[in-house]
This record gives sequence, C-alpha cells and structure tokens, in this order.
Amino acid sequence: MVNVGIIGYGYWGPNLVRNFFAAEDCCVKAVADSRPERLQQLGKVYPTIKGVRDAEDIIYDPGIDAVIIATPVSTHFTLAWKALAEGKHVLIEKPMTSSTEEAGLLINLAEQKRVLLMVDHTFLYTGAVQKMRQLVESQELGNIKYLDSTRINLGLFQSDINVLWDLAPHDISILNYIVDERPYSVNATGITHTNNNIENIAYLTVNYASGFIAHFNCSWTSPVKVRMMLVGGDQKMILYNDLEPTEKIKIYDTGYSYSNDEEKKRVLVDYRTGDIHVPKLATTEALLVMANDFISSIQEKKQPKSSCHLGLDVVRILEASNKSIKQSGLEVVLDASTVPSQSSTQEVLI
Amino acid sequence: MVNVGIIGYGYWGPNLVRNFFAAEDCCVKAVADSRPERLQQLGKVYPTIKGVRDAEDIIYDPGIDAVIIATPVSTHFTLAWKALAEGKHVLIEKPMTSSTEEAGLLINLAEQKRVLLMVDHTFLYTGAVQKMRQLVESQELGNIKYLDSTRINLGLFQSDINVLWDLAPHDISILNYIVDERPYSVNATGITHTNNNIENIAYLTVNYASGFIAHFNCSWTSPVKVRMMLVGGDQKMILYNDLEPTEKIKIYDTGYSYSNDEEKKRVLVDYRTGDIHVPKLATTEALLVMANDFISSIQEKKQPKSSCHLGLDVVRILEASNKSIKQSGLEVVLDASTVPSQSSTQEVLI
Amino acid sequence: MVNVGIIGYGYWGPNLVRNFFAAEDCCVKAVADSRPERLQQLGKVYPTIKGVRDAEDIIYDPGIDAVIIATPVSTHFTLAWKALAEGKHVLIEKPMTSSTEEAGLLINLAEQKRVLLMVDHTFLYTGAVQKMRQLVESQELGNIKYLDSTRINLGLFQSDINVLWDLAPHDISILNYIVDERPYSVNATGITHTNNNIENIAYLTVNYASGFIAHFNCSWTSPVKVRMMLVGGDQKMILYNDLEPTEKIKIYDTGYSYSNDEEKKRVLVDYRTGDIHVPKLATTEALLVMANDFISSIQEKKQPKSSCHLGLDVVRILEASNKSIKQSGLEVVLDASTVPSQSSTQEVLI
Amino acid sequence: MVNVGIIGYGYWGPNLVRNFFAAEDCCVKAVADSRPERLQQLGKVYPTIKGVRDAEDIIYDPGIDAVIIATPVSTHFTLAWKALAEGKHVLIEKPMTSSTEEAGLLINLAEQKRVLLMVDHTFLYTGAVQKMRQLVESQELGNIKYLDSTRINLGLFQSDINVLWDLAPHDISILNYIVDERPYSVNATGITHTNNNIENIAYLTVNYASGFIAHFNCSWTSPVKVRMMLVGGDQKMILYNDLEPTEKIKIYDTGYSYSNDEEKKRVLVDYRTGDIHVPKLATTEALLVMANDFISSIQEKKQPKSSCHLGLDVVRILEASNKSIKQSGLEVVLDASTVPSQSSTQEVLI
Repeated sequence: MVNVGIIGYGYWGPNLVRNFFAAEDCCVKAVADSRPERLQQLGKVYPTIKGVRDAEDIIYDPGIDAVIIATPVSTHFTLAWKALAEGKHVLIEKPMTSSTEEAGLLINLAEQKRVLLMVDHTFLYTGAVQKMRQLVESQELGNIKYLDSTRINLGLFQSDINVLWDLAPHDISILNYIVDERPYSVNATGITHTNNNIENIAYLTVNYASGFIAHFNCSWTSPVKVRMMLVGGDQKMILYNDLEPTEKIKIYDTGYSYSNDEEKKRVLVDYRTGDIHVPKLATTEALLVMANDFISSIQEKKQPKSSCHLGLDVVRILEASNKSIKQSGLEVVLDASTVPSQSSTQEVLI
Repeated sequence: MVNVGIIGYGYWGPNLVRNFFAAEDCCVKAVADSRPERLQQLGKVYPTIKGVRDAEDIIYDPGIDAVIIATPVSTHFTLAWKALAEGKHVLIEKPMTSSTEEAGLLINLAEQKRVLLMVDHTFLYTGAVQKMRQLVESQELGNIKYLDSTRINLGLFQSDINVLWDLAPHDISILNYIVDERPYSVNATGITHTNNNIENIAYLTVNYASGFIAHFNCSWTSPVKVRMMLVGGDQKMILYNDLEPTEKIKIYDTGYSYSNDEEKKRVLVDYRTGDIHVPKLATTEALLVMANDFISSIQEKKQPKSSCHLGLDVVRILEASNKSIKQSGLEVVLDASTVPSQSSTQEVLI
Repeated sequence: MVNVGIIGYGYWGPNLVRNFFAAEDCCVKAVADSRPERLQQLGKVYPTIKGVRDAEDIIYDPGIDAVIIATPVSTHFTLAWKALAEGKHVLIEKPMTSSTEEAGLLINLAEQKRVLLMVDHTFLYTGAVQKMRQLVESQELGNIKYLDSTRINLGLFQSDINVLWDLAPHDISILNYIVDERPYSVNATGITHTNNNIENIAYLTVNYASGFIAHFNCSWTSPVKVRMMLVGGDQKMILYNDLEPTEKIKIYDTGYSYSNDEEKKRVLVDYRTGDIHVPKLATTEALLVMANDFISSIQEKKQPKSSCHLGLDVVRILEASNKSIKQSGLEVVLDASTVPSQSSTQEVLI
Repeated sequence: MVNVGIIGYGYWGPNLVRNFFAAEDCCVKAVADSRPERLQQLGKVYPTIKGVRDAEDIIYDPGIDAVIIATPVSTHFTLAWKALAEGKHVLIEKPMTSSTEEAGLLINLAEQKRVLLMVDHTFLYTGAVQKMRQLVESQELGNIKYLDSTRINLGLFQSDINVLWDLAPHDISILNYIVDERPYSVNATGITHTNNNIENIAYLTVNYASGFIAHFNCSWTSPVKVRMMLVGGDQKMILYNDLEPTEKIKIYDTGYSYSNDEEKKRVLVDYRTGDIHVPKLATTEALLVMANDFISSIQEKKQPKSSCHLGLDVVRILEASNKSIKQSGLEVVLDASTVPSQSSTQEVLI
C-alpha cells in the first residue's frame, strides 16, 4: 500500500484524486490547497481525505510515501525538491519544471535518494498513443518521416507560461515516446496578442539529423477545437484525431518511394494509396493507468512509461523554443554533436 | 471581342480553354503545346480551335490580342516578356515568375506597353474568398489577428519547385487579398524526403509589424487531404474549409479582449463564444469569373482583382521563404522600413 | 426543503442521485436497491445517504416528501400507485408506465391526492430542445411539416421492452413538446433478430390531420451511433445532431412553396436555400434542470415542463406502435375524431 | 461496333452521351430531343452526333443497333416497345416502367426478338456496391439481417412520380443486387405537402420471410443531403456513405449473437465491437462501366449486371409501395407463397 498526498486541488487535482482513489494498492491520505473553498469542495465529495492548507503538511508528513504535485509550473521545482529531500516518491504534473537545469537537479536528487521521480504525461497512457508507439516500433510505418500536430482551441490565456508550455507538452511527450531519435535543433515563431509578452499562438519545428521533422501548431485563439496529429512513414501513415469518440486512430496504407531518373536528371517519386484500418483501442481511462503505473513503479522499483527523463526532454525542447521565439525564429541547437553540416546560423542551447 | 491564345495544354490548360470558351466577348483562337497527343486531345473536344506546336505561333500571331501562359514556372518570364513586347495582354498562371526580379521586369514592360498583365490566382474569385474579404474590410471581425492555413495532401512531387511554391500561392494570394498590411519578414522550415533537395513538407510564418501573424503548413505527403484556413479577429473568427461542398465558410461570433489587473500585476483576458453563421456563397465557377475579369479588364482598361502587383507580392514571400529554409529558418526581412525594433537576427532580402 | 427518496440504483439511478444532490431546496434522504453491491457502491460515494433494500422503506417513510422511481418499466405503476396513495409527490423515469390505462389511473390518483406526478423526459430540459420549441412556437420555421428522427446504436438488447419503448420515448417526448397538434394514428414495422419476439429494429410513422408527419428509426443493431433529428417547416428547417459537442442545432434558412400552373395542369414547387445559423445553446446539465423543475413545481404547485400528461401521450403512441407492429404495420388510430376521411383500413385504439 | 441512338437530352442525357462516346466498340450516331435548344447545346459540344427532333427517327433508323431511353418514366414503355419491335437492343433509364405489367410485356418481347433489354441502375457499377455485394456473397458479414437506407435532400419535386419512384430505385436496385432472397411484402407511409397528391416524403419497409428487413427513407424536403446505407450481418456490418469522397465504405467488425437463459426464462444477447476497415474502391466512373456492360452484353449475348429482371423487381416493389401508401400503410403482399403465417391483415398485389 502506498500512501499518497496531493498538492493542488485546482483544475487537474480533482481528476488526480478521483483516479488515485480508484488505483490499486494506494491510499489518498491528504490533499493540500491554500484556498479554503477548494478544501471545502474536497470535503463534500471525499469526507475520508484530510484537507490541509499548507503543502508542507504533506511533504513532512511521515505517514505519506509519495507526493503528487499539481500546482503552477513555477512552483514545481521547490516542492519536488523538498519532497525528494524527505525521501518521498514524487509525481509532477507536466511540464516537469521551468527549465532543464531544474529538471536535471531533481533527477540527480531522486537518484541519490533512490526514490521514484515521475512526470504525469497522461497522453502516453491512452490506447491511441500506445497503438501509435507499437506501429512505429514494429516498423509497420516503414521509416518514419514526419509528425505534424495541431492543438488549438479558444482557451484560457495563462499568465505565467506561453501557449507552447501549456499545450505542446502533450504532443512533445507523444513525439518523444514514439520516436527514438533525439532532435538536434528547434525553430519557433509566435505572437502575443496581449501586452504581457506571453505568446498565445506559436509554431514549433523540431529538426532531426535523419531527415525526420516534427511540427507543432498551438493556439489559445482558435474558434474551433482541433486535436489532430499526423505521423507519416514511407510505408504507412497515421491520422490521430483525439476528438473522435471512438475512431481516434486511422492507419492509412499509404506510402511513397523515389528513384533517380538518370537520363532526365530528375527524381521520380511514386506514391501509393490503399485501404484504411481503424483499430479498436483500449478504453481504460488514461489517468487511472498512469496512477497504477506510478504505484507499481514504486513497488517494483521499475521505470514508468512517463519517466523523469522523458519529462526532462520535453522541457529541453520547450526551453529551446522560448529562445528561438525571442530571437525571431533563429535555429536553437539542442545537441551540437548531431548537427548536420549544412546548418549555419544557429544558437547553441547550453 | 478579345482573341486569346493559350500556351500549355497540360493539367490546367483544359480548364482554361473550357472557361475562356464560355467567357463573354472572348474567342479562343489557338492553343500551343509541344506534345502531339495533347493537341490531338484538344482537337477531339474543340475542333474549332487551332492547335500549334510552338508557343511563338501564338505570340507572334497578329490575330491574337491576349496570351495566356499555363506552362511550368521557369518558362513564365521568357514567354510573358516576348508576348508583352509584342503588345499582347498577358495572363500568367500562378506563381507569376521564379523571382521578384523577373516579376518586376514584366510589370515595367506591361506599363510601358500599356497592356494588361494579370496573374491567375483563381481562388480570389471564389464565393468563399470574396466573402472573407468583405468580412475583413467591413471590420466585422474587429482587428484581424492571425491567419493559419493548412494545405496538405498526398500529392504529385514536383521536380522544379518545392511544396511551398506549388501549394502556398493559393493561400498567400488569399492572405494578400484580404489583408491590407504588408508583411515585414518571413521564417520558413521544411524537409526533403528525396535526394533532390526540393522540400516536400514546409512551414512558413509571415510576420507583420501590427502583431498580425500568418502561418502556412504545406505537404505533399499527407495521407489525408486538408484545405483549411482560420482567420481570426478580436471580434469574430472565420473557419474556411474548402473541402466542404456547401458550408465552406463558418463565421464564429467569438472574440477576446484583455485588460491589465494593476493590483496583481497581470493581464486579464476575457474570451467570448456565441452563435455561428454559415453564409450562402456564390457558386459560379471561379475560373469563369476570373476569365471574365481578364477580358473585361482589357476592354475597360481597369485593374483586375488578381493583379500583377498581387502576383509579385506572392512571389516576394515565396522567394524569401526559400532563403529562410536554406538558412535553417533564419528570419528574412522583406521590408526593412517596417521591422519592429526588437528583431535582431535577420537577413535582409534585397 | 423537499426530502426525496430514490428507488433503483442501477444505470440511471447514480445520475439522479448526483443531480438531486446538487439541486436546490432538496435533500436526498434514502436510496433503495435490492442488490447489496449497489448499496455498497452508493455508500462509498455518498456516505450521508441511507441505503435500503426495500422500496417500501422509502414509500412509507414519513420523513420523505417525494419519491423518484428509476426501476424497470413493468414496476412503475405499482410503486407509483403506492407512493401517490401515501400522499408523496412522484417522479417516474421514462416511459411512464406499460400502458395508457396505468398512466391514466396514476394521473387520476395524483389529482385526487393533490400531489405532483411528473415523468423524467430529460431531453426536454436540454438547450437544444428548448431552442427547437422556441423556433417552432415563434413560427420562425413557418408551418411545420415533418419531424424525422434516427436513434440507432449497437445497444443493450432489453428483455422486457422492445427498441421503440427503449429509445423512442426520448424522441416522442420531444415531438410532443415542440408540436401542439395531437396525432390521429400510427403505423409501425419492425423485426426481431432473437427468438423472444422483442423487436430490436423498428420504424414508426405518426400521422397528423394537418399533413404534418413524424417518423422514428430505432435500432439496437447499428455499428454506428446516430442521434439525428430533422424538423422541417416551409420557411426554415432544423437539423439536431445530439452527437455534436457544441453545434447541436443548425437552422437552415431553407423553405419551399407551391403554386398551381393552371395551363399545364400541374403543381409548381419553388424551393429556396439560404444561410445556416448555429445558435449557442445553454449548457447546464439537463438532468439538473429537470431536478430543479421537479422541486420547484412541488413548492410552487405548478405544472413542470415534463408533465404526466406529456408522459401519458408518449405511452399512448408506444402502445399503439406495438399494436401496429403485431398486425403487420396496420394503421392504428389514436383519436378517431380527427381521422381524415381518406383513411380506410385501420384499427381503432381503445 | 454497336451504333447507338439516345432518346432524351435533358438532365441525364448529356452524361449518357459523354460516357457512350467514351465506351469501347460503340458509336453514338444520333440523339433525339423535341426541344431545339437542347439539340443546339448538343451540337456545340458534339458536332459529329446527329440531333433529331423525333424519337422515331432513331427507333426506325436502320443504321442504329441499340436505343437508349432517357425520357420521363411514363414514356418508357411505348418507346421501348417500338424499339424492341424493330429488333433494336434497348437500355432504359431507371425506373424501368410505370408498372410491373409494362415491364413484363417488354421482357417477353425482348426474349421473343432475341435482343438485349437492360435497365440503367448505375449504382450497381460503383466500386462501393461491387464491394458490398462481394462482402455479402462471401458471407463475410455472416447472416445478413437488415438494410437501412436514407436518401434525402432538398430536391426537385417531380410532377409525375412521387419521391419513392424518384429516389428509391437507386437503393432498391442495390438491395436486390446484393441480397438474393426475394421479399414477400412491403409497407409504406408518406405525406404530400403540395396539393397534387404526390408524396414528397415517404418511408418504405420491405419484409422477408427469413427475418431480414429493409427500410428506405426518402425526401425531397430535407435541408441536408444524406446518402447513407447500413447493411448489417450478425458477423460484420457495413456503413455506406456515398457523400464521402473516398471513404465510402466502412466495414465494422461488429456482430451479435444470442442464447437462451433457461433458468431466468430470457434471451441473452452478446454483442461485440472490433476494428473498422475502409477498403480502397475502384474509382472508374460507374456510368462508363455500365455503358461498357451494355455494349459487351450485346456483343457477347450475355446478361448484364443491371438486367431487365432486376429492373422489373424494382418496379414491383415501387408499385406495391404506392398501393400501401394509398391504403394508410397496409401491408401489400408481393409473393403470397412466401408469406409467414403470422401475417394477417394484408392486400395481395396482383
């Protein structure tokens, strides 16, 4: 049995409480939130859970084994650091931290304390993403060539993070989960329509040495909600529409190949379209699967699917995207060792 | 009566012939194509039109008043130059030319010869684009904030131009037609999945001093066809889905505004959603409306909707996008006079 | 404050408990279910509500003012009769009873006891149906001409009632709510794909003296879920797609009219298509609005939207549909006084 | 080489001319239409085809081998009879004739004259219908249980035939083509919204001894266009949406089975949902495939897919539907030999 405490009972907290309540071998002992009305709400629905005003009442509670942090990003590092230092296992909401430096420090402390540090990238636990990973891993798509994601909506403008930090972690975590190759650089552009210098529309390109490319289109100012991702290989391609109630994944038996026409000095491209397959997907609530992965990873001392290393890689791309936006889209290098030679005008991310 | 000759009877040529055949005050005298099988095909359907092998048989035919050029982009300049020099009116398929320099030279020659030079950006003549322009001009959208376009498909890989030059002219011409402000710079990224260095996927951001932003997502390697554009103002927003048979334009009574919360030192954003309106659109074939605009502009010595100046502006953005892609997404300045001060790392387009 | 007891904690019961818990001026005192595991489930979520095994512990509890019946249809009459006889207010799940006779007896008893008898036709409380009623009442559609409803799914085969009794009450209650005219007859056809003589696919036509017609297509054996209704007037028409997350109602400015061409001895029909309007709808949960209507109707001694008379009219059509199906689609008359003269082969429903 | 003459150059005639022009081993010699402006239109597009005012100029032309009849239904019988009597092969537009009697007489005459008599049910030649037939024939769907078709639109009100005669021939021909069993009866209901007693909305149920059922929903007064058919077996089910540009057929691996629960005296139904498969379909224009089937059936003296017997069966159902509508939905028996015993109130179609 793992006793957990949850810090933050705002938008996402109730979902965490509900699912950790339902998870196996787990007991939700306490929830912390500084707002009395949130604790009152908690009490009405879960009279057995202790509500506390101060996060430290959870962090320093010897009866609690694991701390779940569902507070604004800027507070993640400090709360997680304290909890890890106390020897607690820690689960952090995405994005993991405000910087790669912070994420690295937490990972080191968790290793030193031999406790689990995990990030809640819930989407990795959906039937759709599990199916996509399997299709990529099994080479059913052939060589994977691109990932193109659109996540737009009329959404709450955040006051501390821009639209990429708010929405893209979902898609970048999926990218990192299904593609093994690590990117070498990013370019990002965007715009602020208020006067606080926080982008509400942004576009991100992630570059890879192999010729794979990923692109993310995020907006808080779209009148329609779109949650669409294309993943293309040279043998098959996937359309992932998260708004479809059941047919979320469509696998197109569509591919292309090329050859050189020596005589005419040009490249000939053949493309092919075939049947479409819509697989039935697992429908267990992803957040519950995530909660069970957290608990069983603690108990079995194994790495969860949504590991802290994946969480760090997501922050690395977000951090670089900020640098690129602030320098008018300049390419920002993530990993200088893999930069192809033709790149010329770049900034290297530390 | 305007006598026209059409050069090129490939993919688009038959559509031009059919519509100029149907246009008012117009007679299609001759069609040129170097391929005998294409001329044979022409003869079967239009026994009254003369088929010729050599474009010059049209350009130097004194019985022809206007020349329509529907050949690969690289040939546009030479053919148009010769025709203008002969005093013919000229209509060029999009994109106008391979460079802004060529486009500028043609515009000068046409002015000097006092003939009409026009570019066929057919989309400007659709009911959908006419409605969008009217909504922007009338300020019904409020202040216009962004345009976001996706035009992807499993499409024919071109061997002379990349996917932006192939697909984006449609969307950039719409942008230029409905938005008066001129952009100051572009950023573009992309990828080549063959070995000919011609991008088959590319992303383009166009930047404006006022804070308006435009973004274009083009691909020849998508398993699904998408033709979608969002145009957002702070009062209303438009979704333009060209694949819808009748409901192409949806107007969302959706907007946002912001104010400063002095006490908490942050920006408060309000957004609002309301009804949706789907206007009935004119359904006349756009290409026929374009043909009639060409003929009547010749006769009335007026500027057509799809003018050579708009055609030049499209080429300017495409040319800059090439520079940006080849320099890893570096910002390329179009108009140094309007660059906001915060921009720092840029290349100025000559 | 109205103290309520709920009988039945199966599929729908938890939704009732949750919403009456949230309703104003209302206290959920007890829930009855004969299955211990259901009461255990109740206790986990609502420790303050008393769980009882026997419905009579609710019906005869003097502390309870109103009884809500969410059990199989065949038990509705007996439970409601006992509760009304005790002077309790009663809310019954749809369909109200197994026969018009039972429904009539309950209505009489409720009047005699001066208590509220109401049927839970939840759909009447949705923003979509409220909007449709308003459009019909205000004559915005012109003269209303037809209602056509499709409600199909791969669904649970019921063992006591056929697919019309299971699914059509939703649509028939909407029909009765938005159309004032009463029907004079019905025709129904259907098929049984098991060996229990209970139709799993059925089609129902409801006939009206004015020339209005309603049609219902219900199935438990469709691979796709469809929840679509068309309501057509001669001035405007409505498409109601309940599966759309936000755009549930589309109002088409589409109409038709006719005139007589005396010379050619034929009827000329003109039709017209125009814009489409998608109104923003109220998004309050319909079941909560229904619960509040029940409570306030008790307190203010007023008729609720979903009255027992509407509930009876729904049962009347269902009962007649059974007669028609069992007699190979024969027309069954509901109200002999309004039958148009041309009808000839009919059975009169007593 | 088969020389054909086409009677009628109205709505469908130009499509026939275009496709017979393109068909193999076929020459379109003449087209008849009484309206001069239609012949003028023909001459502009096809200067090589002779236009005649009188149908008899085609029927009695010894240079013509085959006559295609694309005129209003009421004229089909007389024109076809004359052409068959002259020993011409005959293709008739759907529906074949105004009555089964007329259809039977034509079939007898064609047999006597040893010429081909065929009906143009174009849909049978689509990739979608060919695929559906193959799926039913190969038993991939298991035992076929139902067909449910909706074909509604805002459409031209006909002045000689009702909406079932206008729209349902498409769907009934598909039904007859993919299902071998013959129906024993029909029920139909409908409504007239003009004063000419011609139904503009109608519903048709077709009953089969095996327990299979078919239902058709047709309307000229829908604000939205729907072309949707469900075909359900107990192993798999098909959704056929003809408005989808490419994904017209979806095959659901969805089925159900039942068993008897002796103890509880009830039927237990299991249902199952699985993957969805969207097959790539042949995209050749159906009308061209039909034209080639007509020509090759003449040359090879074989029966075409869309035979006169299938055409007669379609008329038989339409004729019975009229009888049923006019008698308030009364069951009308098509084939008394296969009526199940439980049917009681019926009219037998002569």
